[in-house]
Amino acid sequence: MKICRFGSGRLGVVEGERVYDVTSALDVLPSSRYPFPAFDVLVANLPQVRERIEALLADAVATPLAEVSLLSPVANPGKIVAAPVNYTKHLLEVMADRGLNHGNLVEQIEKVGLFLKASSSVVGAAEGVQLRKLERRNDHEVELAVVIGKPASNVSREDALDYVAGYCIGLDMTVRGGEERSLRKSLDTYTVLGPWLVTADELPEPGALDLAIRVNGQARQSANTRDLIMDVPALIEFASSFYTLMPGDVILTGTPDGVGPVRPGDVMEASIEGIGRMVVNVSTASA
Amino acid sequence: MKICRFGSGRLGVVEGERVYDVTSALDVLPSSRYPFPAFDVLVANLPQVRERIEALLADAVATPLAEVSLLSPVANPGKIVAAPVNYTKHLLEVMADRGLNHGNLVEQIEKVGLFLKASSSVVGAAEGVQLRKLERRNDHEVELAVVIGKPASNVSREDALDYVAGYCIGLDMTVRGGEERSLRKSLDTYTVLGPWLVTADELPEPGALDLAIRVNGQARQSANTRDLIMDVPALIEFASSFYTLMPGDVILTGTPDGVGPVRPGDVMEASIEGIGRMVVNVSTASA
Repeated sequence: MKICRFGSGRLGVVEGERVYDVTSALDVLPSSRYPFPAFDVLVANLPQVRERIEALLADAVATPLAEVSLLSPVANPGKIVAAPVNYTKHLLEVMADRGLNHGNLVEQIEKVGLFLKASSSVVGAAEGVQLRKLERRNDHEVELAVVIGKPASNVSREDALDYVAGYCIGLDMTVRGGEERSLRKSLDTYTVLGPWLVTADELPEPGALDLAIRVNGQARQSANTRDLIMDVPALIEFASSFYTLMPGDVILTGTPDGVGPVRPGDVMEASIEGIGRMVVNVSTASA
Repeated sequence: MKICRFGSGRLGVVEGERVYDVTSALDVLPSSRYPFPAFDVLVANLPQVRERIEALLADAVATPLAEVSLLSPVANPGKIVAAPVNYTKHLLEVMADRGLNHGNLVEQIEKVGLFLKASSSVVGAAEGVQLRKLERRNDHEVELAVVIGKPASNVSREDALDYVAGYCIGLDMTVRGGEERSLRKSLDTYTVLGPWLVTADELPEPGALDLAIRVNGQARQSANTRDLIMDVPALIEFASSFYTLMPGDVILTGTPDGVGPVRPGDVMEASIEGIGRMVVNVSTASA
């Protein structure tokens, strides 16, 4: 099932070129008072939500996909975990280019580990990327994004996919420079998630998916997740050996070679096999 | 005012050695449905909460401080921002010790920037630190923690303190190693905030506070925030030039020299002038 959030917080199911409005399925979610849950309540209750969605679908109002504004499919991600150099060709490209490595030593993912992006950087496809630090290079990085479905601590590689709620496309927008990745990649709007969540049952093998991004119609990155150095189960095993992954936590699995700059006015079109495509506009932050 | 959270989510005001229960002041906070606010609702509404607290205090039930279990004063921090090497003596100590720098280049904060810790790593003083990765060195780092009170984007150094709700003690627990700081410092329980929030009006000058930590009664770190390389206003200016700081976001301002290892069974006692002291037990993570 392809589940989207759109408009002013509506819930939809995407089938072909149509979005079916199933917002009232959110009624199964508990309300809360302070302190609020430290995880995504929709993802944590996905089985119950899906059951309600199934009951609603027959009578749901459909809108053309092109007419809705897509929000991030995860509204309350607790943490955004990201893999730094997880495709060999991208590692080689970074090592060779001082504009990418800024004189810092670049090492393989096993040594570098994972980094965090601020949850406040997350937007959906329709919200677009608003660039800051325009005096520096701002790059696109397209990635397979894994959405965790239940608490995962010290999970083995063999069991890892049982903890996945679904997948979406992630854009790990990046200000180039020498600072910590968790700073340069956490600007508001610098994590685009979308266009929707594809539930894990529709994508049983995340390790063989074509992914690509075009900017203004020009091909920039094109690869397949089979070339990940640390694959999805390995990433979950590694991350959960350090901390507990919670429902709605997102793992950005790393970007392939071909990263490049974007400027205000550019239009990015990202796609991943089995998920879909999303169009994201680039503009300037309004101060 | 010293505001604490204790027990199973109760709200208290600390005066001397007593905690006054003002939990019903939380009634001024709105309830919510999914999606939940992406910031701390108590901190965002602190003026209204304080007003209610003032009205409740005269009739509030008091409990000896020693008898309550203190939780993190910020329940829903959106992001934990931390300064890496922000005291000169600590910078020198890291540069000189391969057990601290792991062969990585160590640079000043202006070049390294800030890093993130996972919100899921936050606990209060009574919850204690549960160590993982016991085959590696796990260190204490005591820091002044700044709690942001309202949305801050591109804030100047001159205006920065207007955006502060208050202060607490922060322990930035750290697994030593070569990986990204945002991984090694984000283990569950590796960010201790406490013992309570001291509102900013009680601490108008955060730039001249003694801070210290003892482990099993032995002095380990002792310094004054006047030796910060990037002081509190500068940190807010720098961070908010990258991303929007939200109510309840925490800035850990960096640790002075004297960092050292802790082991299960150790007892840490941290103190900051004008805030207070907190005792934190170290144990082993279950699982």
